Amino acid sequence: MDRVLAGAAGLAVWATLLCNAASLAYFLRGYVVEASRRRRRGCVARSGEDDVALRPEDEDPDHAVALAPDAVLSLELGDPTMYEAFWREVGGRAATVIRGWQAMSYVSDDAALCWFLEPELEREVRRLHRVVGNAVVDGYHLVVGTGATQLYQAAMYALSSTASGGKPVPVVSPAPYYSSYPPQTDLQLSGFYRWAGDANTFAGGERIELVCSPNNPDGAVREAVVAGGKAIHDLVYYWPQYTPITGRAAHNIMLFTVSKITGHAGTRLGWALVKDPEVARKMVYFVDRSTIGVSKESQLRATKILGVVSDAYETPPAGDSGATVPRLFDFARRRMEERWRTLRATVAASGAFSLPEETAGHCNFNKRTVTACPAFAWLRCEKEGVEDCAEFLAGHKIVARGGEQFGGDARCVRINMLDRDQVFDMLVQRLSAI
Amino acid sequence: MDRVLAGAAGLAVWATLLCNAASLAYFLRGYVVEASRRRRRGCVARSGEDDVALRPEDEDPDHAVALAPDAVLSLELGDPTMYEAFWREVGGRAATVIRGWQAMSYVSDDAALCWFLEPELEREVRRLHRVVGNAVVDGYHLVVGTGATQLYQAAMYALSSTASGGKPVPVVSPAPYYSSYPPQTDLQLSGFYRWAGDANTFAGGERIELVCSPNNPDGAVREAVVAGGKAIHDLVYYWPQYTPITGRAAHNIMLFTVSKITGHAGTRLGWALVKDPEVARKMVYFVDRSTIGVSKESQLRATKILGVVSDAYETPPAGDSGATVPRLFDFARRRMEERWRTLRATVAASGAFSLPEETAGHCNFNKRTVTACPAFAWLRCEKEGVEDCAEFLAGHKIVARGGEQFGGDARCVRINMLDRDQVFDMLVQRLSAI
Repeated sequence: MDRVLAGAAGLAVWATLLCNAASLAYFLRGYVVEASRRRRRGCVARSGEDDVALRPEDEDPDHAVALAPDAVLSLELGDPTMYEAFWREVGGRAATVIRGWQAMSYVSDDAALCWFLEPELEREVRRLHRVVGNAVVDGYHLVVGTGATQLYQAAMYALSSTASGGKPVPVVSPAPYYSSYPPQTDLQLSGFYRWAGDANTFAGGERIELVCSPNNPDGAVREAVVAGGKAIHDLVYYWPQYTPITGRAAHNIMLFTVSKITGHAGTRLGWALVKDPEVARKMVYFVDRSTIGVSKESQLRATKILGVVSDAYETPPAGDSGATVPRLFDFARRRMEERWRTLRATVAASGAFSLPEETAGHCNFNKRTVTACPAFAWLRCEKEGVEDCAEFLAGHKIVARGGEQFGGDARCVRINMLDRDQVFDMLVQRLSAI
Repeated sequence: MDRVLAGAAGLAVWATLLCNAASLAYFLRGYVVEASRRRRRGCVARSGEDDVALRPEDEDPDHAVALAPDAVLSLELGDPTMYEAFWREVGGRAATVIRGWQAMSYVSDDAALCWFLEPELEREVRRLHRVVGNAVVDGYHLVVGTGATQLYQAAMYALSSTASGGKPVPVVSPAPYYSSYPPQTDLQLSGFYRWAGDANTFAGGERIELVCSPNNPDGAVREAVVAGGKAIHDLVYYWPQYTPITGRAAHNIMLFTVSKITGHAGTRLGWALVKDPEVARKMVYFVDRSTIGVSKESQLRATKILGVVSDAYETPPAGDSGATVPRLFDFARRRMEERWRTLRATVAASGAFSLPEETAGHCNFNKRTVTACPAFAWLRCEKEGVEDCAEFLAGHKIVARGGEQFGGDARCVRINMLDRDQVFDMLVQRLSAI
């Protein structure tokens, strides 16, 4: 795709943008955002004395705020706001209602290994993995956490706190690695584990390897550098909108998060599938000591949201009665394919940038060959004289994360591919103009 | 009270229990619990296509499960389930409704110091402190956390991560101290801070002091052992149901949590009032790195719940139209006074136990002299030959936390005073029978 003639590619970009403007207007419905200041208001629905029905005025008052033509595009975080369009489409069926007296206790099930995990959430998580076929769940323990971030720390703790030698266990990941791994690992200068950099150049013996697949930032499908060692598999992007589902993963510790499945990043809800019950128990201990469990509200909402996702694939299609049920992975794959097609055409046309080569594979879930559509673009600046791509793009009001933060090249940046349509469209326009 | 004649006191206990049974039946409504297995089900209300009204079948299906006469009473945690009765009384006005598309972003307000704090929650927190008069809020920064637990770690991090010398800063608290302080402090064997035990016997120089007031486990009102040093004020029990509000606290770092105010422990939502913006920024950094912010669902629910609490004190009393609005602090103080009266009479009658002496003071909020009614009873076993009170009580199917865990005496135990009525009543019956 990178070799398509610049003129033709440029034409393709504008055609796609026009197409977006027309066919996606249905989803867009104007809930765009002032990117430099994403203040939200009025999120708690008011309710009457004894009923809690939503009223029209409970709709998001910000949904008509337009993005200014010279707005700074904040694409540094992986904020998955693209998914708002889907959940508006789903409507009231996806709403979560929590009574004042519900879920007040610390405890969800004090007989369970993970005593703060809501049993309904556990059921929905296992069901979703079965629907998608991306991970083995039978024989695995489920540990819930405040995002995959907390579980990643819990897993490092579980794998290192009983290590012999009294020295911190080195933690490594092949570069380019997720930029938050180093600062999260060394946040407290733990006596149990310590960041040790690129797994490919690490020369020591015992280590914990973080295997992110598909990889953040570059979308690569990865296996552990050292097979059979202590590893934490960060599979938060192993979902059918981002990558072909080629089989059920069955690693010792696998991390997932609702953020990257359904777009509910603010929910801060992740889970780990853990083979060894002792490791699971230590992870539970870590989550207990660091936050005394995980928000019940987040769990109740994730239960509802994941249930809606699975229902759409398990419920037989509607007959004459008509309305089709929105299906999350269909929505997100369609959107991601469009965005990647557009971005690749733009990059090819510009000549100033390059992207990792497009890959594809048979997806067991989609039952067809699909391209990889990573949640981030790992964009390399090929322009003469540009050494720092993040700085260069900042001059064009595009805020991206610089490559050195990922243990990589400063000529690369990571760009969020999951922002709202209007932000993505403006990104493409600005890249085209460079 | 401890010196009242055993016979008279015994009579008083049974009279109070009878009184409870009658006058509290209104609140009780049978939502008692199988203490050995607190599984909850069906917490997410089902909803129709485009409306999210609650239906009668969405009520808690467990509310009629009775406590078996020989049930183990789990009073080791500080689970504040006593408050469920209040929130049932409030009804639908306290329900939180969250649409599928709401609060999906990581970001609440990216221009704010605490960018993951929902602005509505900040307003309600400041309003509640003004209503109660227990803490100065003007000139303070608000940092939200996954419970006071996370904020306590964030505060230690903020106070120690820039300390000179490269050695962990000692963390101390006067015994008896909250039993979770040592394991939480040393969870990761941080290079920045390290648990150093009883503040009263600590001989070193630089230290961080944890000042819990009223104190967990014994309810004592405390000041820092070393005035003017680095201190974290854990004020989670400084609310009018537990202690007289004698003035607005104005320490450098003050921690609070909804758990101990409204009983929503499962919400995992706390906040810190922080004077120094640099300390606040470091705390925000810690929460960002450890969990990328705080559950938006918890924040939305806390916003709703705290709003209902403040409304009841700020709204003028209803006229002829009638229904009085339930008032949280009135409910909880009444309940706590009854429980403490009952427990003190029971202990006096038994002769086998003792409690810290009752204290009282003028409460600016209640506008009268009130007794201290701590959230825990710090019970001492005075029985000949009993060296380990927790073990002794376990023999009577009362699970309490042993005194050594608080840096104190094994003849003492900490007993939760905030469990449901039926559990408390059974506790009193069992203590009476010893």
